[in-house]
Amino acid sequence: MAVGYSGLPPLTPINGVRIGTACAGIKVEGRKDLVVFELNDQCQTAAVFTKNAFCAAPVVVAKEHISSTSPKYLIINTGNANAGTGQQGMDDANRTCQAVAENCHIEEGSVLPFSTGVIGETLPIDKIVSSIPDALESLNEDNWANAAEGIMTTDTVAKGESQTVEINGQTVTITGISKGSGMIRPDMATMLAYVATDAVISKELLQKLLTNAVNHSFNRVTVDGDTSTNDSCILMATGRSGITIEESGAGFGEFEKALTSVCQRLAQLIIRDGEGANKFVTIDVSGGQTEAECEQVAYTVAHSPLVKTALFASDPNWGRILAAVGRAGVNDMDLNAITIALGDTVIVENGGRADSYTEEAGQKEMSTDEVTISINLARGSESATVWTCDFSYDYVKINAEYRT
Amino acid sequence: MAVGYSGLPPLTPINGVRIGTACAGIKVEGRKDLVVFELNDQCQTAAVFTKNAFCAAPVVVAKEHISSTSPKYLIINTGNANAGTGQQGMDDANRTCQAVAENCHIEEGSVLPFSTGVIGETLPIDKIVSSIPDALESLNEDNWANAAEGIMTTDTVAKGESQTVEINGQTVTITGISKGSGMIRPDMATMLAYVATDAVISKELLQKLLTNAVNHSFNRVTVDGDTSTNDSCILMATGRSGITIEESGAGFGEFEKALTSVCQRLAQLIIRDGEGANKFVTIDVSGGQTEAECEQVAYTVAHSPLVKTALFASDPNWGRILAAVGRAGVNDMDLNAITIALGDTVIVENGGRADSYTEEAGQKEMSTDEVTISINLARGSESATVWTCDFSYDYVKINAEYRT
Repeated sequence: MAVGYSGLPPLTPINGVRIGTACAGIKVEGRKDLVVFELNDQCQTAAVFTKNAFCAAPVVVAKEHISSTSPKYLIINTGNANAGTGQQGMDDANRTCQAVAENCHIEEGSVLPFSTGVIGETLPIDKIVSSIPDALESLNEDNWANAAEGIMTTDTVAKGESQTVEINGQTVTITGISKGSGMIRPDMATMLAYVATDAVISKELLQKLLTNAVNHSFNRVTVDGDTSTNDSCILMATGRSGITIEESGAGFGEFEKALTSVCQRLAQLIIRDGEGANKFVTIDVSGGQTEAECEQVAYTVAHSPLVKTALFASDPNWGRILAAVGRAGVNDMDLNAITIALGDTVIVENGGRADSYTEEAGQKEMSTDEVTISINLARGSESATVWTCDFSYDYVKINAEYRT
Repeated sequence: MAVGYSGLPPLTPINGVRIGTACAGIKVEGRKDLVVFELNDQCQTAAVFTKNAFCAAPVVVAKEHISSTSPKYLIINTGNANAGTGQQGMDDANRTCQAVAENCHIEEGSVLPFSTGVIGETLPIDKIVSSIPDALESLNEDNWANAAEGIMTTDTVAKGESQTVEINGQTVTITGISKGSGMIRPDMATMLAYVATDAVISKELLQKLLTNAVNHSFNRVTVDGDTSTNDSCILMATGRSGITIEESGAGFGEFEKALTSVCQRLAQLIIRDGEGANKFVTIDVSGGQTEAECEQVAYTVAHSPLVKTALFASDPNWGRILAAVGRAGVNDMDLNAITIALGDTVIVENGGRADSYTEEAGQKEMSTDEVTISINLARGSESATVWTCDFSYDYVKINAEYRT
């Protein structure tokens, strides 16, 4: 089960977005594995895709389509990532879009395809094409929870979040879902998120808002540093609330904050459901000269197998944290000025173990499900936060046994 | 036991280097834990130290001493790294040098101190100081095997190698020892290597030769990317063979090759003895535009927990290798041109699984102790090789249970 998460909260529909699901039998019979989003005509859409050079066929097609046309439909299959599949994979991704386009009498370019699941196997295209009518038939605004289930692969829980923002006495809603069992499976290629709002937002601003929100949420979580070939995050603004969000306008700050908060929640749920995860770990780095150097230190600590195995063992092994900070590649750090704390307990200061530190206090901080490691570099005023999990026997077990 | 290594081979003494050991009882009573090297007056010495910003006190002192004076003695203790120990640590490292200097009637600056073991605990300086006479009393040219044992911490085997080079009918010898159970313990801070030759080499050339050899050996192995605070590698040239090595002179290429070969062997032994290691893995990246990009790809694959757990499971999971290559950060790679092979079996070509590939063939390549992953980027003529090991339950076990 996911660390500190008891399951899907109520998800508020977004006027203008209808969702349908179907069981195409892609990997398992009778399981929801096909999801279609239908967007209203005025809907603006922004997207962020994986930075992996080897992106999957659907990512290539989705990038191409969104760059030329305003999307009307999104189609997502689980059970197969359509990645590492060469020309056949491109043909299949295009064929999926065609099938939706034919059913809905629109242009193929208005459809964005997404796939998640096993890498290197050909998409069972016939099963998908023949199930599209079923998915379209079930289109309904109140289907977010079904969609959250329909995009799961090895996730143990469905992941979603709704938040509202009050602007001049009126309500704007943001609802999103995500999937991913830890960003840790390029072969269960991996992170997908769909977020919609009923605000009126220009396409240009929407992309800017999404990029910023992703940089502080999905790009700030890591299980093991392995970036998937299929990662995609889509933000839709239907405009149906009639409330306009503009950069200098009323409620912009509140909306931006709520959007980032929804994305952070969706991203953190992926970590809480990370494979083998027993602890949800927040790494706060402050006192940096730049945000980038804070991020660099936070990721070095977050990726250190030694720090992660110590977290698994609930061992307050500060030497490992200190050594990871030291190898992060930040020039001219002053070891003697740096402080490191576990929760409220200072563990490192003046270049070594803090005088006030006791193993009992460190042990107590480590024995909870949610651990915060705070690192103050004492050389500036910038900061960055990264979320990660521990490294357990189960991580090795799950990833060693996955294909067998 | 170390993968494919049955134990210490005969180590040829180097005329001009005498070695003594003692049992100081630093961590365990009756165990060799103190080693002294005595170098002849003509000896030239070069050194490479950890790049970790938080280097241990002995590293700070050793760097300072070697920059101003020609070393006459090296003193190494195991059981305690004297790292993360603040001002007390610096005082203790200096006190160790003083004690050797007083016993040998030399300047304190002619002594280089090294420590390896637990981080964050104060050095038991009295035990060390009182055992130095014992170590000096046992000085002998034929003590390399004892030294290889004396520098071990959690190593399961002593590590050493001797090679000779014939130059104009005369023999130059290179002998070295190393310790480190996988570069994976900043808290058992970690990699030390001492290599000596009887060739005559200028200090300047010696440093150049060492840096080059280290870049192709100790800097090309990784267990988990965690760089220790104490890593040090020392190369000594006693000159006693009377044979001079010069950059344009006879035998230079042969000597350089033998030195790199000794360092590679010593580095690879650390991987073979890596904690939890079941497989010795060679990652060969060729066809790059630069050596740096080849190294970058090789390290990304070598550090991928997903690739490493697949290796542990003997699972030819090529999707994970492909995804790791894709996220290595090399711009404009052509997925369709890249080939990836396991041993002699091509697994990826034309952007997906090779047509000729069968799971049986992949499984067979994976079921051996020594696995080679060859990646051809097909965009240039540069190459780089990195050595690593798999990621097992035992890795998690050893590192989770280490302090408890």
